[in-house]
Formats: sequence, C-alpha cells, structure tokens
Amino acid sequence: MKKTELFENIKRKQSFLCVGLDTDRNKIPYHLWSDDDPVYAFNRAIIDTTAAYCIAYKLNLAFYESNGVKGWTSLKKTVDYIKTNYPDQFIIADAKRGDIGNTSIMYAHTFFNEMGVHSITVAPYMGEDSVMPFLSYEGKWTILLALTSNKGSNDFQLTEDVQGEHLYEKVLRISKNWGDDESMMYVVGATQGQLFETVRRIVPEHFLLVPGIGAQGGSLKDVCHYGMNNMCGLIVNSSRAIIYADSTEKFDVKAGGTAADIQKEMAFFLSKKGIF
Amino acid sequence: MKKTELFENIKRKQSFLCVGLDTDRNKIPYHLWSDDDPVYAFNRAIIDTTAAYCIAYKLNLAFYESNGVKGWTSLKKTVDYIKTNYPDQFIIADAKRGDIGNTSIMYAHTFFNEMGVHSITVAPYMGEDSVMPFLSYEGKWTILLALTSNKGSNDFQLTEDVQGEHLYEKVLRISKNWGDDESMMYVVGATQGQLFETVRRIVPEHFLLVPGIGAQGGSLKDVCHYGMNNMCGLIVNSSRAIIYADSTEKFDVKAGGTAADIQKEMAFFLSKKGIF
Repeated sequence: MKKTELFENIKRKQSFLCVGLDTDRNKIPYHLWSDDDPVYAFNRAIIDTTAAYCIAYKLNLAFYESNGVKGWTSLKKTVDYIKTNYPDQFIIADAKRGDIGNTSIMYAHTFFNEMGVHSITVAPYMGEDSVMPFLSYEGKWTILLALTSNKGSNDFQLTEDVQGEHLYEKVLRISKNWGDDESMMYVVGATQGQLFETVRRIVPEHFLLVPGIGAQGGSLKDVCHYGMNNMCGLIVNSSRAIIYADSTEKFDVKAGGTAADIQKEMAFFLSKKGIF
Repeated sequence: MKKTELFENIKRKQSFLCVGLDTDRNKIPYHLWSDDDPVYAFNRAIIDTTAAYCIAYKLNLAFYESNGVKGWTSLKKTVDYIKTNYPDQFIIADAKRGDIGNTSIMYAHTFFNEMGVHSITVAPYMGEDSVMPFLSYEGKWTILLALTSNKGSNDFQLTEDVQGEHLYEKVLRISKNWGDDESMMYVVGATQGQLFETVRRIVPEHFLLVPGIGAQGGSLKDVCHYGMNNMCGLIVNSSRAIIYADSTEKFDVKAGGTAADIQKEMAFFLSKKGIF
C-alpha cells in the first residue's frame, strides 16, 4: 500500500485508528470457546464491527505464537479474512523482529510473502544490516521502534550521547537514510507527549505508529497536537480498550461502538488540522 | 538447568560448543526432500552426530517461522527430540523477542512452558519491563543482546553517552541488576575481539552466548583469551560452518566431524585456562 492510498483512506473514513488484535485466548467471551478456532471467530466478529471506523489492523505476534501451531493458523486466517473482505485495511504484523542479515531475510520473507501483511515492526538495536532486508520489498513497510510507550523506554532510549542526542533521536536520524517515508514508519508511544515535537523535527514526513492510548494512558489530544502533520502522519493503535470493551455475547457490538467513539474524536482532530 | 550443571557438562565434554540449528529448507540435502518433515529429519541427523561434541543447541526462530505452521511443528519436534534423547543439552530459542510487559509475558509463556526450552534471547531496546517477565521462570535463562556480531552493531551499540559509557556497556550495567548470573546471560559477538575485556569488567561471572565464529569470521582464540572466566563462562555458537559442512548424503557425518574439530580446539583452551 502506498502512502497516498493510506492518506486517502484516512480522509475518506475520517479516522487514523488501528485496531490491535491482541487476542488472548483466555479473555475471549465464553460462548466462543466451543468454536473450532475461537481466536479466529473472535477476530472476525471484531473486524466486522470495527472496519468502518479504522484504517488498519495490528496483529501482535506474541498472542498468536502462544497458541503454537493453532495460533499461527488463526493468524494466517485472520490476515486472509481482512484482505478478502476489507482490502483497503493496512495490516501490521507487530513482531518486533531484527537479527543478523541472513536471519532478517528469513523474517522478511515470512511476513511479507507467506503471511502477506503490509508492514512489520522491527527493533533497531542490531543496526542497519538487521533492518535492510525488510526494506527491499516494494510497497511494503518497515516500522522501526523509536520511542516506545512503556516505562522501560527510559532505560536506554532516552540515554544522551556526547553530542547531547538521545538514543531514540539517533535511531530516527540514522535510520531515515536506510529507506524513505514511502517505506518506513516509526513506533512512538502515545505516552511520550511533548517528545513528539522532537520526533517531528527529525522525521517531519514519516508516518508514526502510535500505541499507548487507552489501557496504557496516553492522550490522543497530545499525540495530535504534537505529532500530526499535513498528511495526518499518524496511525494510532488501540487494542484492549476496544476488543475487550465487553465480555458478553455483545462484545463485538460494544467493540464497534468504542471504535466509533474514537473515530469521532479523530475526525475532530483531523478537521481542526484542516485535513478534510 | 543450573549454572553448575552447565559447567559440569562443559568439563565432562571438554566443550563449550553450541550447534546452531539455523535449518534452511532450501539448503537441506536433496535426498531428504521426500521426507514428511525434511527440516526435522535433517535436525535429527545433525543432532545425533554432534551431540557428543557440544553442550547446547540454538534454534533460530526465523528459520522455522518461515515455514509457517509446518515450521512450528518441526521446531517443537526438534526440541522434544533433544530433550528426550540428550537431556543434558542446553536448549536456546534464538528469538530476540522483547515487548511491553503484557506481551513479553505471552512470549515467556510460549517459549518456557509450551516449547519447553531452557533459554531465550531477548532484545534490550524497550528496557526493564520488557525483560522482567522472562526472568520470573525458575531455572530458565534470559539471554540479553549486548554487543552483537554483525556490522550494524556499530550503529547504536557503540554510541557513547555523556559519561563516556557505550550503549552496550550501559545495557550490561543496568540489566545485571534485573536478574543474576543464575538467570541471565548476554550475547556478545565473536567478532568483537578485545571488547570482551570491557564486557568482563562489567559482568565477570555471567555466561556469554557468543555467535560469529565460522561464517561470520570471529576468532575462537580471541574470544577465549579475552572472554573466558574460571567457570568457562562461554557458550560459543557455530551454525552454518557445522550444519552445512557438506551437502551430500554424508552431511551428518561431516557435521559431526566439524563439531569434533571445534571441540578439540575448545579442549585446548579449557586446559590452558586450567579448567580440567
């Protein structure tokens, strides 16, 4: 998917919401447990009620891997379901992979060719040759961790070097030369507030994938204030607040309602920026 | 597995070799292709001929994930085969995972409970709360990336902060308080030569998992000279140089021979250090 397509989808839907399918088998409503593939049944229902309000789905690999072979099957079926029924949705494999070159080549092949997702999250610690294999796929996206939403982001990402540059800034500055804003995005946590200004000084044009609103406490208002650019430039994820909004048989309707509420807020911020 | 058990195995076998089962379906000898599960058949043969010369097996997840559901099955069967037939072998899932707390909990469960491996490699970029869930499993090991073997290790790991401390040193210094040398190891690439001295100043007692000899060009002599401690403290991995030593029907015999050669070298360095 190209950047302009993503922007068109955002304008058309007045939304830059990504729904995080962090589907935990143990948190699925009881009535689905008798299904052949409860995770897939749950995802399908969530997708059908939220697709009108979002422009992307993010699948967190950990939640699928934890079910072993069955989990991989649920993951693949979910990706195929989205691609068949909602082909305008941007699909993110939240895998946070990254390894020496020959290994990253295998990961890139798995996610882009076999799984068929549009993008994958990648960890920067191992540097350029661990990231480049992901960038060699035309039309696919590499989403590099820059400044994450969790408490531990303080431990290393905010380390200041001799030039006064924080590690996350260096990651942005160095890595933006590995690809461009048509092939790379960055993860910047919603909990980072004003630091979005610094991020935008280094990568004004790139899309940012923003986790951390909802359960993690980040503010959509701050994210938009400090992070939005003229093409929106934001994909804001919410996982638990949407998919576990309700645990009864009406879980999917409630999920759709929560997604619709977030979409309305997003429409307000897009309009304020003059984007539609 | 406890640290003392690992050390006993090293002394008994006069080896600190880890065989990396980076099994690429396309590099398997032709005569195995008709097998129901060629990757598993290949691994079994390699394990049978190398087990006498090594103390650990490392399975790189990328190579299994790339075969999707079939790959996960091959991986699980390989782990079970090692545990049943060679229960003294230390098994490493080379997964380089790391995510926010609730996600790392899922990964830890998958690898330690479901897959049943002894240890997993973890990326440090997201900090303490992304690593702690792996440390809560008694008798299991977290192997944190510190200074990797690839060229890209220069990009961020060698960044110097305002106190003159490199990022990899900070990762070692901060993270060693998260666990201890009975629950944590570190990845330090064989290509890093003299930097092992700095690593040893910060973590004198920890075991180091050392990739990068063989295909990547690191020197076993340098690693032992700068990195070995009184309990050896090294697990040195070789993948491609052993498992693809030969591509004929005798691939397993050749792999065993190559492993035996490395073991002899290792015995020499252990003896020089007075370890047996």
